[in-house]
Amino acid sequence: MKLLVDEGFDINPFCGGRGVCGKCKVKITGGLPEPNRSDKKVLSPQELQEGHRLSCQFSVGSDIEIVLDEDGEITGLTTGVVTETEIKPAYKKGLIHLEKPVLEDPRDFARRVHDELGTETITLQALKELDLVNKKKPITVLSRAGEIVGFEPGDTTDKFFGLAIDIGTTVVVVYLLDLNSGEEVDVQTFYNPQRRFGADVISRVNHSIQNKDGVQQLQEILLEGINSGIARLCERNEIQKESILTTVIVGNTIMLHTLTGINADSIARIPYIPVFADPVKFGPGELDLEINSRGEIHLLPSISGYIGADVIADMLAVDFHSLKGSPNMLIDIGTNGEIVLGNRRGIVGCSTAAGPAFEGANITCGMAGTAGAVSEFSLEEGNEASYKTIDRKPARGICGSGLLDIVAELRRWEFIKPTGAFYPPEEMTSWKQSFMTEYNGSPAFRVVGPGDSESGREIILAQKDIREVQLAKGAIAAGISILMEEVGLELEEIGTVFLAGGFGNYLNPASAAAINMLPPVLEEKVLRIGNAAGAGAKLALLNKDLEKQSRKIKEITRYVELSVKPEFQARFVSAMEF
Amino acid sequence: MKLLVDEGFDINPFCGGRGVCGKCKVKITGGLPEPNRSDKKVLSPQELQEGHRLSCQFSVGSDIEIVLDEDGEITGLTTGVVTETEIKPAYKKGLIHLEKPVLEDPRDFARRVHDELGTETITLQALKELDLVNKKKPITVLSRAGEIVGFEPGDTTDKFFGLAIDIGTTVVVVYLLDLNSGEEVDVQTFYNPQRRFGADVISRVNHSIQNKDGVQQLQEILLEGINSGIARLCERNEIQKESILTTVIVGNTIMLHTLTGINADSIARIPYIPVFADPVKFGPGELDLEINSRGEIHLLPSISGYIGADVIADMLAVDFHSLKGSPNMLIDIGTNGEIVLGNRRGIVGCSTAAGPAFEGANITCGMAGTAGAVSEFSLEEGNEASYKTIDRKPARGICGSGLLDIVAELRRWEFIKPTGAFYPPEEMTSWKQSFMTEYNGSPAFRVVGPGDSESGREIILAQKDIREVQLAKGAIAAGISILMEEVGLELEEIGTVFLAGGFGNYLNPASAAAINMLPPVLEEKVLRIGNAAGAGAKLALLNKDLEKQSRKIKEITRYVELSVKPEFQARFVSAMEF
Repeated sequence: MKLLVDEGFDINPFCGGRGVCGKCKVKITGGLPEPNRSDKKVLSPQELQEGHRLSCQFSVGSDIEIVLDEDGEITGLTTGVVTETEIKPAYKKGLIHLEKPVLEDPRDFARRVHDELGTETITLQALKELDLVNKKKPITVLSRAGEIVGFEPGDTTDKFFGLAIDIGTTVVVVYLLDLNSGEEVDVQTFYNPQRRFGADVISRVNHSIQNKDGVQQLQEILLEGINSGIARLCERNEIQKESILTTVIVGNTIMLHTLTGINADSIARIPYIPVFADPVKFGPGELDLEINSRGEIHLLPSISGYIGADVIADMLAVDFHSLKGSPNMLIDIGTNGEIVLGNRRGIVGCSTAAGPAFEGANITCGMAGTAGAVSEFSLEEGNEASYKTIDRKPARGICGSGLLDIVAELRRWEFIKPTGAFYPPEEMTSWKQSFMTEYNGSPAFRVVGPGDSESGREIILAQKDIREVQLAKGAIAAGISILMEEVGLELEEIGTVFLAGGFGNYLNPASAAAINMLPPVLEEKVLRIGNAAGAGAKLALLNKDLEKQSRKIKEITRYVELSVKPEFQARFVSAMEF
Repeated sequence: MKLLVDEGFDINPFCGGRGVCGKCKVKITGGLPEPNRSDKKVLSPQELQEGHRLSCQFSVGSDIEIVLDEDGEITGLTTGVVTETEIKPAYKKGLIHLEKPVLEDPRDFARRVHDELGTETITLQALKELDLVNKKKPITVLSRAGEIVGFEPGDTTDKFFGLAIDIGTTVVVVYLLDLNSGEEVDVQTFYNPQRRFGADVISRVNHSIQNKDGVQQLQEILLEGINSGIARLCERNEIQKESILTTVIVGNTIMLHTLTGINADSIARIPYIPVFADPVKFGPGELDLEINSRGEIHLLPSISGYIGADVIADMLAVDFHSLKGSPNMLIDIGTNGEIVLGNRRGIVGCSTAAGPAFEGANITCGMAGTAGAVSEFSLEEGNEASYKTIDRKPARGICGSGLLDIVAELRRWEFIKPTGAFYPPEEMTSWKQSFMTEYNGSPAFRVVGPGDSESGREIILAQKDIREVQLAKGAIAAGISILMEEVGLELEEIGTVFLAGGFGNYLNPASAAAINMLPPVLEEKVLRIGNAAGAGAKLALLNKDLEKQSRKIKEITRYVELSVKPEFQARFVSAMEF
């Protein structure tokens, strides 16, 4: 496993190489070793027979040949509810045809271009290009904020693209937009390559603290991933990277720090201060991002160390900060759970360490919301379980929404106590007992039988997985409760509850209410808005004026640090109960 | 000579290597060759005996050792009449001491700095520096236009410098200013190293047209010169180049093009269109200028291909564009002669190819206004000539003001006819004849006898030198005449005639009037303002608001192209007469 990780393969060992999660399994095609104890415990007989072994438990003694499972193409939601916007990108492409100069008109060439386009200034680089371009033929002029930044010979105005990038802790989404039409041309989604340094942001910050070049490693690997995403988008759509002029990036605060190579350790320790939270603009050369070198990269602002630009983008996407009437709530459940509450008059927000459980991490059979993930689940007494998988593929694991449904059903049918513990077998009916199995010596619930799963191994929910869900849902419920108190509102007064995040879009509000993750009174108010962070980034890409809006959101949002609220810990513990 | 020029030695062969100007002489210390015909004609017996030979006439057959004459330290005027200005440089250095962050105040570090200093944005580079700087100790913050561009540990606010650079065709002046006090700390003056590619701008443009890398050569050699000037200033004043944050550069339009590596060929050919004439700002990295990498270089605007930023700086220095009352005139005589005329209501300007005669080029014994140059000259009938040299050093040659005095006296005492030709010896008194000698078979006037010159060689004014003066003064007189007509004014209506340029400062207005370079009615109105271009650049360096003024000057100034005026040629020819 260490070799594979070091060589840049996309291994995602949630258990940290302790031989329990099974996510580092590889197929060995020659010189197959005998399975060891961990292999036997974690892998199915079929997998073992096919040559799969846990790479974290395997020492390489001589040359071997291995085959890695291909990562499922991520089909997670990339669209979202989108506020309409004007198309006013930060850059312009203008076509000019200079007249032949005559003595009567001594204007310099740059001024002639300014007079055609209404621009005012020009960069030195652009002057050099103007010097060399054939001035007798049509010329395309690149400008930004009244400043000319470049020239291209001929008419290239139809080749005018931008990128909106949402850097999640687990998944990165790169949207390619046509800046003439405003249309989304294509999208590339991939796992955040930083995962190899830890599933959650804190592990990655720790990596950067413990390793001299840790920050650079986090930055390089992320940039490599983004650049290869850009390259794929360019190839697939037959465009040159030079046609991409501008990029808007959102992500949580720690992601934006690691992206720019800035240490996030001050966010990880009390009093959780980021180095920057305001919007930042810079040239692609400063980051080695492979777009037009004359382009610009724009990071939207963050609110605090734990409410990032992704949440500001969520709010942009639904115009959260402009809504009149009752205060609304927005919950973005990704690797963390951020909650904001308010309207145009003011917003409060908090962040809960919901943990990456809903993205598949730390869950025995957890996985991201990709093909084959159990995404819906229900039980009727006396019957087999009924479930759906994403893309109707054979079941491979459980994603966040499935996890929530399963736990809600386990509680409804009283497989588990209010504390989350499974009832002892003697207190279960034989129908219930037929679902029960064992995992690491503890009771576990069989979600999918071995005959129905892709691997031939059963897909289970272990006791410890239920604990993970309790931690996550308890944190969110406690956060909601504290925020409500902060503004002195009753739950009945809330208008809409926007649920953002790929997971939020599949989540069944009834299940969330059933397990008290969401106060039941809010269940009817839920509006699922999908990947709203991506949608907000796209809006900001299309309309540069939304930068002002994003600053306004930051200004009117007050951050509430839960960890210093004396009541939070008690609220959290009690909210873990069902 | 070719070897020396190629190796970057400061050889200044005005005659282009034809063995007549003597300016390429070197001292050969071993294996001295016999003097050839050119050596004997151009060099004095003493020089020949000391081992001097013309390097342009000498083929190197085997290893030799040579010694070059040191260039006289240029002591040309670097001060000028200066309008007072507030000290408001483009950059600021601020000292902050961040408070220890507490949970109650979640502001990011960048915001804390903004709140201390009133800045609004920050560059990515500065964020990286903020990340790494020790935040428990005092920090110096570098900012520009409300944007933080860098951090320095400790208190460096007293190390805050800027450069004002005046790039003349012949001479470059680099001023070092303390941006806290506004005081000029030091100045470095050196010959424009581009001289090796030609004494005038057109020869240099031709070099760039005829050689593939010509523009790059012109740029590199100029930048090398400027960087070594900066290095000397830093060394002499014990400052680090990192303490220099901002630089304002002026120069004629072609100089600013070659400085930035932009082709000026379109200025050299009809209709004389520059690539740029508006102000330009860029980072030192774009030019490899050795100041603080977070600094900025600012080129003032030009008016046209032949009225450059130096003339705008002249006008800034005397507030020309704000003066009320009678229109004023400003004449900047450098390698070209630019004339502007007007007041706050509007300005017209023209440029005359006065040629570099007044800077010593194409004049047999011409030299720049450095130590040993004959700068004043007078004759009284029956007496020896009386003259002054710069710094009272033994005479080495004739600079522009001396040249003008000599020609005025030659005309006053009728050594020369109104056409400029020497009278034949038979029409001269013996007093006059005592001054006459020969040069290349034509009559010449002995300015300084061999016994009184530094080299032991006589310093003369040849018939062809008088022709050069006639060309120069004819061009300026014709320019003045056309401009007066352009605005429909009489000479009597002119308020002040500002004479700018190192040469302008030493020029005797009476001599200029005597030879009809300046209409006699203007003689009493002359105010010599020295190197006003440098003074204007210094003002713009000290006060960023003067950029607006420079744009205003450009806006209200109309350029008159003399070469398309049908009357110009006739006016020019008749103005060549005395």
